[in-house]
Amino acid sequence: MELKELINRNSSKILLIVLDGLGGLPVKEGKTELELAKTPNLDELVKRSATGLHIPVDYGITPGSGPGHLGIFGYDPQKYKIGRGILEALGLGIEVQDTDIAVRGNYATVKREGNKVIVVDRRAGRIPTEENRRITAKIQEAIKEIDGVKVIIRPGMEHRFAVVFRFPEKLPPGSDAINDTDPQQVGKEPLEPRGENPNAERVAQIVRKFIQKATEVIKDEPKANYILLRGFAQKPHIPTMEERFGLKACCIAVYPMYKGLASLVGMDLIEFEGNTIKDEIEALKKVWNEYDYFFVHIKKTDSYGEDGNYEGKISVIEEFDKHLPEFLELKPDVLAITGDHSTPSVLKGHSWHPVPLLIHSPYVLGGTSERFTERECLKGELGILPAVKITQLLLANALRLKKYGA
Amino acid sequence: MELKELINRNSSKILLIVLDGLGGLPVKEGKTELELAKTPNLDELVKRSATGLHIPVDYGITPGSGPGHLGIFGYDPQKYKIGRGILEALGLGIEVQDTDIAVRGNYATVKREGNKVIVVDRRAGRIPTEENRRITAKIQEAIKEIDGVKVIIRPGMEHRFAVVFRFPEKLPPGSDAINDTDPQQVGKEPLEPRGENPNAERVAQIVRKFIQKATEVIKDEPKANYILLRGFAQKPHIPTMEERFGLKACCIAVYPMYKGLASLVGMDLIEFEGNTIKDEIEALKKVWNEYDYFFVHIKKTDSYGEDGNYEGKISVIEEFDKHLPEFLELKPDVLAITGDHSTPSVLKGHSWHPVPLLIHSPYVLGGTSERFTERECLKGELGILPAVKITQLLLANALRLKKYGA
Repeated sequence: MELKELINRNSSKILLIVLDGLGGLPVKEGKTELELAKTPNLDELVKRSATGLHIPVDYGITPGSGPGHLGIFGYDPQKYKIGRGILEALGLGIEVQDTDIAVRGNYATVKREGNKVIVVDRRAGRIPTEENRRITAKIQEAIKEIDGVKVIIRPGMEHRFAVVFRFPEKLPPGSDAINDTDPQQVGKEPLEPRGENPNAERVAQIVRKFIQKATEVIKDEPKANYILLRGFAQKPHIPTMEERFGLKACCIAVYPMYKGLASLVGMDLIEFEGNTIKDEIEALKKVWNEYDYFFVHIKKTDSYGEDGNYEGKISVIEEFDKHLPEFLELKPDVLAITGDHSTPSVLKGHSWHPVPLLIHSPYVLGGTSERFTERECLKGELGILPAVKITQLLLANALRLKKYGA
Repeated sequence: MELKELINRNSSKILLIVLDGLGGLPVKEGKTELELAKTPNLDELVKRSATGLHIPVDYGITPGSGPGHLGIFGYDPQKYKIGRGILEALGLGIEVQDTDIAVRGNYATVKREGNKVIVVDRRAGRIPTEENRRITAKIQEAIKEIDGVKVIIRPGMEHRFAVVFRFPEKLPPGSDAINDTDPQQVGKEPLEPRGENPNAERVAQIVRKFIQKATEVIKDEPKANYILLRGFAQKPHIPTMEERFGLKACCIAVYPMYKGLASLVGMDLIEFEGNTIKDEIEALKKVWNEYDYFFVHIKKTDSYGEDGNYEGKISVIEEFDKHLPEFLELKPDVLAITGDHSTPSVLKGHSWHPVPLLIHSPYVLGGTSERFTERECLKGELGILPAVKITQLLLANALRLKKYGA
């Protein structure tokens, strides 16, 4: 069955709200962050919604942000793979092309002992973003091209940046098989980038020249006096949500990574001022008439989970709950609320645990869960399902799928 | 794993009762048709049964009757596909053979401008079924054979009919690759049927002659003065339930479509008088000693659902409940009760929602569901499972499957 053949376009609106790293584990009195949070609006909505939990990739598998989001967008994360460098470049607003090799960069602090370079801080003391911007501009000014390969470098937050090497022609698959230069430990020398095959080695030659030139430019900086590169990657071929699901889709997100992911599946990125949930809602309202599918990303649930700060995570859930009525006022035909993966505060990181999922539409049973929590969602009509099936369910609830077979 | 290798024939009896379009959504006071129905006998049985819900094809996918039934018979509906024309012919009671090409027909109204034929109504004003019967009989009378190919034509409802072209020998695969003749728009000429390959073109030649002769017969009808053909199809090759599961299977159904589907998987069709559940039970009793597996089809749950008549649907469920003790008196070793898909009255059509399933045998846990409803079945030991797995479960409960591996 090709889902494409069943697509029935209509004027319905699908709103997907992703609270990054939503799911959790007991943190206090045997209760999870979602169970401890006071969420009167979610409590009310959940009773009229279909609930369940989704498995982002597979049982026991902890997803990164890429696989986590691809799954909930309807793309099998084991089939569609996105290199880290591509994700970072997209996130920093570089429109990556088929002829590109992209890579993530860190500014680092090194000391020089004769010919030796020793890493003393892999993150250059997490320099302020402003300083990063100044330094990155200096490098970009000095290096525009290397042997006919265009070099695009963009600052990220703190010590992070992305580099894109734009070749004159499309590179064969496997041209991104180049090792990371980050030695992963202080007191060691950065690694030399080497290609695993002749095509990749051709790219690696350019990269080595770039590192040499760039570190020459910044060698006298007090902190950011070196660069480390990780995650060389080519742009994957991914059909758009329009092509696969007939959805004109947009993304409302603050952080670059998630914008990058959304643009990779063909979503338009909505520009807006500010970085609060309120700002996201204002942006959503402005484009409500222009799209079929809206992906709203809320980051801080994950950030606090990663910090092991369960009170912080609870406060973001409660803040979201306060804003929920504003999302509902838009009257989406289908509303889904979930996470891209779990980030239990007790694990201080992403985890493999199934993620609570709520789908609200006129065509659900409802009445199965009292609250939007891990344990209550277990009672729901959606059961435990693979994340990649969520989009099919959203399309069905939006009456955007024709009958299969006579 | 080949299920075939695990088959362990014995004398057990498996009874599968399909209430067509069984599952529903809340219609009144937040309750579904099954929740509103008074079903004392099901309430009693369900407590001693395994319960769950099955997904007919995939999450969010709404099945037609073909895929819906193939799934519960144990055939992956994404692997075994039944052409539209075949299904229509089966539905109108034509017993299709391996040498057949079947197609759906519409009577249409055309105007003739010189040599040109222009469609003015693709459905001939939805002529009454009685008129259809008269016209179809007229065509059948005039055309019995074309160049040694037998022509069988049967009226359906309103403007619909089916034609079977019965060739003297089996046709190669792909012989049904012929375009629809319906131009899909009024004001256009009907399309000429053409074969995509030499075998199909041979069939298309016969079809062109048929269209010419048939339209000659009806050219002076006030409305139904032309025919449009859609969905040319050969009989699919499907291994029988005997071959796959070692089951001597029979079908007790009133409507031709479901008999047709059952015959496609090798079930014997039991002939009987009448069309009530009571009549079906009498027929079942008569053949109880002759088969291993009995498929009993109850249609009206779906019909009322399609009409949006939830009270009608409830009354059929209640009527079935009254007759349940008579089914139990036969003492099937394994009894399964389910639907082929959901037909919520609020949607007035088939839907994607998981379908309640009950399996009664001596080898179930039971004690998980208080009633046979969508929400109560969510609590059951079968969970939410793909329809195609049901037959394996029935075989297991009938102790008809050997251990896999040592």
